[in-house]
Amino acid sequence: MLRESIGDAVMTIAELDKPQSKAVAEPTRRPRVVILGGGFGGLNAALGLRNAPVDVTIVDRRNYHLFQPLLYQVATAGLSPAQIAMPIRRILAGQKNATVLMEKVEGVDTGSRTVLTANRRLPYDYLIIATGARHAYFGHDDWENTAPGLKTIPDATEIRGRILSAFEKAEVTEDPELRRKLLTFVVIGGGPTGVELAGAIVELARKAIVRDFRNIDSSTARVVLVEADKRLLTAFPEKLSDSAKRQLERLGVEVKLGAAVAACDGNGVALSDGQRIASACVLWAAGVMASRAAKWLDVPSDRAGRVIVDDHLHVPGREGVYVIGDTACVKGTDGRPIPGVAPAAKQMGRYVAGLIRAGLAGKPVAPFRYSDYGNLATIGRKAAVADVGRFQFSGFLAWQLWSFAHLWFLVGFRNRIVVFLDWAWAYATFDRSARLITERRDR
Amino acid sequence: MLRESIGDAVMTIAELDKPQSKAVAEPTRRPRVVILGGGFGGLNAALGLRNAPVDVTIVDRRNYHLFQPLLYQVATAGLSPAQIAMPIRRILAGQKNATVLMEKVEGVDTGSRTVLTANRRLPYDYLIIATGARHAYFGHDDWENTAPGLKTIPDATEIRGRILSAFEKAEVTEDPELRRKLLTFVVIGGGPTGVELAGAIVELARKAIVRDFRNIDSSTARVVLVEADKRLLTAFPEKLSDSAKRQLERLGVEVKLGAAVAACDGNGVALSDGQRIASACVLWAAGVMASRAAKWLDVPSDRAGRVIVDDHLHVPGREGVYVIGDTACVKGTDGRPIPGVAPAAKQMGRYVAGLIRAGLAGKPVAPFRYSDYGNLATIGRKAAVADVGRFQFSGFLAWQLWSFAHLWFLVGFRNRIVVFLDWAWAYATFDRSARLITERRDR
Repeated sequence: MLRESIGDAVMTIAELDKPQSKAVAEPTRRPRVVILGGGFGGLNAALGLRNAPVDVTIVDRRNYHLFQPLLYQVATAGLSPAQIAMPIRRILAGQKNATVLMEKVEGVDTGSRTVLTANRRLPYDYLIIATGARHAYFGHDDWENTAPGLKTIPDATEIRGRILSAFEKAEVTEDPELRRKLLTFVVIGGGPTGVELAGAIVELARKAIVRDFRNIDSSTARVVLVEADKRLLTAFPEKLSDSAKRQLERLGVEVKLGAAVAACDGNGVALSDGQRIASACVLWAAGVMASRAAKWLDVPSDRAGRVIVDDHLHVPGREGVYVIGDTACVKGTDGRPIPGVAPAAKQMGRYVAGLIRAGLAGKPVAPFRYSDYGNLATIGRKAAVADVGRFQFSGFLAWQLWSFAHLWFLVGFRNRIVVFLDWAWAYATFDRSARLITERRDR
Repeated sequence: MLRESIGDAVMTIAELDKPQSKAVAEPTRRPRVVILGGGFGGLNAALGLRNAPVDVTIVDRRNYHLFQPLLYQVATAGLSPAQIAMPIRRILAGQKNATVLMEKVEGVDTGSRTVLTANRRLPYDYLIIATGARHAYFGHDDWENTAPGLKTIPDATEIRGRILSAFEKAEVTEDPELRRKLLTFVVIGGGPTGVELAGAIVELARKAIVRDFRNIDSSTARVVLVEADKRLLTAFPEKLSDSAKRQLERLGVEVKLGAAVAACDGNGVALSDGQRIASACVLWAAGVMASRAAKWLDVPSDRAGRVIVDDHLHVPGREGVYVIGDTACVKGTDGRPIPGVAPAAKQMGRYVAGLIRAGLAGKPVAPFRYSDYGNLATIGRKAAVADVGRFQFSGFLAWQLWSFAHLWFLVGFRNRIVVFLDWAWAYATFDRSARLITERRDR
């Protein structure tokens, strides 16, 4: 079925070209590949089309590719935004067949094969949608102001400002109850992001800033990690979930399992078991919702808003349209959905690039197969869990593997050096380099 | 006169102490020094009181000390905010007699010797006001949205976003007139900040990003520096002003002297000579206005809003109140006002700290004397001017001196290393590390 649709696409291109090439005697127009989103999926699709006989246009409303796995470090003042973000057009500067446009996508007209942005209509022969996901509140959108999620750089600097401001306000206030509330941090969601945030906040409080206050003892800050499931990191084997919990508790995090959030406002959170936690800083890491791609395409999606694609990542009934990464619902060979992680998005991007190349050469392509190289989650300094093939381990060795892997995959040689130096420094001194509370512009 | 006022202050302290020490049998209360502002002046006043028998409280509405001389590098994507900013409480962590409060000052009650913040009344025996200056539009406050100035980190990231967005929008548009306008940058004001900004923008356009676009040639960007005076850098000798102009022109900046701005809006600027420059990115570096200290104290100020202080930096008629740095109008021994530069603010901070120490020890203090170690302004890569004692020079040597001096004085050993590496990298590769257009938080 996929090969048919590719064949169709090529046919259509040939047809489209005819009048044009007749009229102005141009050389045959090259197929146009439009990629929406410059994350791991979209960027790897573009890179995979290097030197292919196509014109690639990559559209993103931001000018940078973000190394999202380290975003929690920006949110907890360990790294600066520019250390984990790189201009998309810089990454693709040397790829002559790629054009980068910073625009917001408004919709897709699959009939005329056009992407609509605020300023123009972009025709495509192949469309790759890799617009990712946002955190979601599952019917409680009003919680967002109280409990921001962590998906973008502005999210991260907002969270960083809230965490640091809570300590600043606690230092200023003379009301012991308010102080207690300001020194209580609640992280909702025990997936990798929640675990990373909770671990990093408690380390910030107990190490990085502990000597800096006069009226408070920042190490008394309470960090509570709330998870509705019976265990943390449900994507990992149970043994590692238990180890993660133990490692977090050793750092000083209170872990509440089997506790759903019933309410969430300026006073803190109320849990399903009736317990209330007074907190001025609640962070949301409990779930994501895919971007609007299913609406643009008017096709079915799963509960998380992800477009259901076939085993070639093609959208059934939408010629030439592929959806990848966190926006796609893809079943692995074991029947389980492929997780929304960077390696999966990268592999999908490369796969679709290869599929387009093969289609143009008239070659068949096997269905997409996700190569699972393992699963890593960091918890704190020297603390992590790793699930790599037959090996499951935790603690310092897992943390080293995590550090190495993240540094290795961080886009850009230079960023790699700078982040390495920052980590080496932070490790040696417990320092945090990016402790800025940046407000919006004011006079 | 100053010694009298110090004597008075000490008297008052002694009086204030008596009932308290009687009532609760406390040891004699130490004099309270409140410092408003954690810039060069305030921070150096605090550091100068290390181990002095006083309690120091430093109040700033931001949590960081900013190395303002390098702010233009943040605005032009060369450095990240955290590289030139450091938490005030981190700098003072080891100084046990210093407390840092992140609060906004609402006013000063000189009668009861109290500083008013949103949350509390802070009593003082000595008050040091070092709240700096903001850029000013001299009756044209409506120009601020069109032509932002550069004084804070949010200012810098806003300007960075505007500069980079102009190139992004020029890449997207198909309207040649709009493209021309988007690729025209106007910097108003030929002082050090204006010269630095103009030089850095033209270097960004011609070097750092020149390979990254497909539809535009970023090196064709026009950068216009507008100055109402007949020469640039009026604080420098004329020879160096001329050299700065030549160096800027060699980089590619158009320098317009003797041209005042008559109007400024979304279309660009209109000059006093009738000329219009269509530009989507106008930056303001034409003047500053001191903070509201004169209003808080209800005392006379000069035209730039600076509090007129005596030769001991004391505010006449306001016992125990000192104003320093950009907020103070101080005449040098030559009768000319001391310039609003970092070294002057630092010296004033140290001076008042010493004066308070001497006052407590009953020793006299000579009037403040500004030690002018010279004047440096950078223009671009390998381009600068230096006016150091009897030596005036420009070009590569001046640039080296500038780089060394700025690196040396940058607060914090670690920042120094990281900025050094960034510069070394940028110098070797023409790269810009912090090319992020960060928007406000959105879904």
